[in-house]
Amino acid sequence: MDYESIFKSAIGRLHQEGRYRVFIDIIRTKGSFPNAHCFGGNGPKPVTVWCSNDYLGMGQHPSVVEAMETALHEVGAGSGGTRNISGNTHYHVELEAELASLHGKEGALLFTSGYVSNEAALSTLGKLLPGCVIFSDELNHASMIAGIKNSGCEKRVFRHNDLDHLEQLLSECDADLPKLVAFESVYSMDGDIAPIAAICDLADKYGALTYLDEVHAVGMYGDRGGGISERDGVADRLTIIEGTLGKAFGVMGGYIAASRTIIDCIRSYAPGFIFTTSLSPVLVAGALASVRHLKASSTEREAQQAAAATLKKKFAAAGLPVMPSVTHIVPLLVGCPAKAKRISDVLLAEYGLYVQPINFPTVPRGTERLRFTPGPCHSVEMMDELTDALVEIWARLELELRKAA
Amino acid sequence: MDYESIFKSAIGRLHQEGRYRVFIDIIRTKGSFPNAHCFGGNGPKPVTVWCSNDYLGMGQHPSVVEAMETALHEVGAGSGGTRNISGNTHYHVELEAELASLHGKEGALLFTSGYVSNEAALSTLGKLLPGCVIFSDELNHASMIAGIKNSGCEKRVFRHNDLDHLEQLLSECDADLPKLVAFESVYSMDGDIAPIAAICDLADKYGALTYLDEVHAVGMYGDRGGGISERDGVADRLTIIEGTLGKAFGVMGGYIAASRTIIDCIRSYAPGFIFTTSLSPVLVAGALASVRHLKASSTEREAQQAAAATLKKKFAAAGLPVMPSVTHIVPLLVGCPAKAKRISDVLLAEYGLYVQPINFPTVPRGTERLRFTPGPCHSVEMMDELTDALVEIWARLELELRKAA
Repeated sequence: MDYESIFKSAIGRLHQEGRYRVFIDIIRTKGSFPNAHCFGGNGPKPVTVWCSNDYLGMGQHPSVVEAMETALHEVGAGSGGTRNISGNTHYHVELEAELASLHGKEGALLFTSGYVSNEAALSTLGKLLPGCVIFSDELNHASMIAGIKNSGCEKRVFRHNDLDHLEQLLSECDADLPKLVAFESVYSMDGDIAPIAAICDLADKYGALTYLDEVHAVGMYGDRGGGISERDGVADRLTIIEGTLGKAFGVMGGYIAASRTIIDCIRSYAPGFIFTTSLSPVLVAGALASVRHLKASSTEREAQQAAAATLKKKFAAAGLPVMPSVTHIVPLLVGCPAKAKRISDVLLAEYGLYVQPINFPTVPRGTERLRFTPGPCHSVEMMDELTDALVEIWARLELELRKAA
Repeated sequence: MDYESIFKSAIGRLHQEGRYRVFIDIIRTKGSFPNAHCFGGNGPKPVTVWCSNDYLGMGQHPSVVEAMETALHEVGAGSGGTRNISGNTHYHVELEAELASLHGKEGALLFTSGYVSNEAALSTLGKLLPGCVIFSDELNHASMIAGIKNSGCEKRVFRHNDLDHLEQLLSECDADLPKLVAFESVYSMDGDIAPIAAICDLADKYGALTYLDEVHAVGMYGDRGGGISERDGVADRLTIIEGTLGKAFGVMGGYIAASRTIIDCIRSYAPGFIFTTSLSPVLVAGALASVRHLKASSTEREAQQAAAATLKKKFAAAGLPVMPSVTHIVPLLVGCPAKAKRISDVLLAEYGLYVQPINFPTVPRGTERLRFTPGPCHSVEMMDELTDALVEIWARLELELRKAA
């Protein structure tokens, strides 16, 4: 059996399609993010990061760093065990209480990542509800797709944010079967938002539970950072809200918030929760400080929205093909994997501007794009520099500009 | 649809079987581990931890803590992205090189946990090898079982460490199909060790790849902490070695080490690797310091082996039913979930000694046990205190003592 050639041909397919990934080796500069250094041929060189999901710069916030330093000195590096076997520290207990309160739920449960929280929660929910049918938005994240698949449940995919299609599928389903509607609030590659209240109306009408992924919204929307469900005043209508500590909160880890009974079920039955070392208390302490800060402060949220609005306006004024995002995410359509990679390469090599090309399977083929995430730490000067560079590259690569807005 | 009662009855089943889990809420005391404080009814009270997987106390090692503090101050809390989108820091690149070198492989790949590394690597390998049959030791960890299941491959389970049975299953399988033998080096609940060389002989004979989980061995066996495969001089015979940064290395995270081609395949195809925020650089920096320290120092390994030998001797001399472990793990057989929990409760409440009962599904029913993990930080006085307490409780609960060894 020639295993090597099987593996080599799998890699070959990626090269052929122009979507072989090369990881850019960077090191951030705390306190001056989005500034960083990029490692390459001729030693580290300064770059500006335009594609981080540390959306609000909380990864360098003094209160987060200080809380992590204190925990590091008080309890050390790791938790040393699963939540059940010596890895349930008091930090974990406190953060879960804080997250439950953030979403107005009875309980919350921490996971090692947002990916694991989606996979573990959805697969376990499905297994606990015999015959359950899961209704899934077609643009749901890979981790939700994995969880739904591993639940063993029947899956019905509805067209993205399409209420009529969702209702059609719900109405066609046996009324006696358990049902779950799984969707996201902010879709991170397009920057659009789900009609949460209307989806909850349909769920109520057809007796379905609801599962909302808010990873690209927590910390950034709602008066206390509770996400779009808080902003829209509908958090209480959702069965389960899932979030991350690794994006706007700036640290690492994932969680769900729900009723006490559901939290107890996932805690007790999900292998991906039970059989893994719990989050380092250092991370938990940092996340706790971050959640508490963003509960009280809207400064970062407002600055982020202002930055996104400014960048969209600058892109549009320059005729760059900015996609119609209604959130903090600013995607620029390219439509070809090789060109998206080429623009990204030139930006990094010649301008010291770092934005990753987004290719299939993260987005559908033909919609390859550059995805910018401006935040409170990006200045107007940085935006001008970026816009000018893009216009220059667009001309050089003979890409089409729109009529300036 | 009465969802609440479905969920409540799932919880009710656990109570009925006496295996509903209550997490003990503790906080460790850095620098004086295994001392910790336990939170409960009357405020925090001091306890000695006997069930941590921070086997060597590296979670409080000055070089680990210092490296984490430095990283925290240099780059901040989180990585801010997936490995592909701004989350590939120079720390990640360095640690992967160090881990590849530890196991004598061309490459290594970091994951957010050992659970995720097993799930992602095994499921992806299986999908890349059409028709692959996976041969799995019956005591393999839940994360390996999840990975094998999600690979969609046919699975053949061989009796624990049983070479004859493995050979029988291999010989019955179509010679033209790809094959993978998945097993662990140290089985963490019994403390026994797989015959790695003999399993590699069989894999060679039948043209199978090999996947070895060394999570309970890395850092602790081999001259540089490369695990049992290093101790036995067989690391080069294994296709993939999987390990963790969350046990003997004292931090958090998981990894695989393998050929450049295989690492490139998993990196490029595994959703559980691609679509998740990368490990915090703070953790990676701590793990790097820990791996480097244990590569150079055998002091901790030797002290751990001495502590385990002493505790086993003391248990045996007192007539306690210590199970025949050949490693650092010291399991005491109870054989009943309620009694195991009761002993654990009394130890914690009356003696300030913390060891978690290990019940189904972590171990087979009827083999419920207490699992002690003595290490370099446990003193002889602590062992005497523990042995005396257990003898007293054994008498009080009218459990059987063996004839003293």
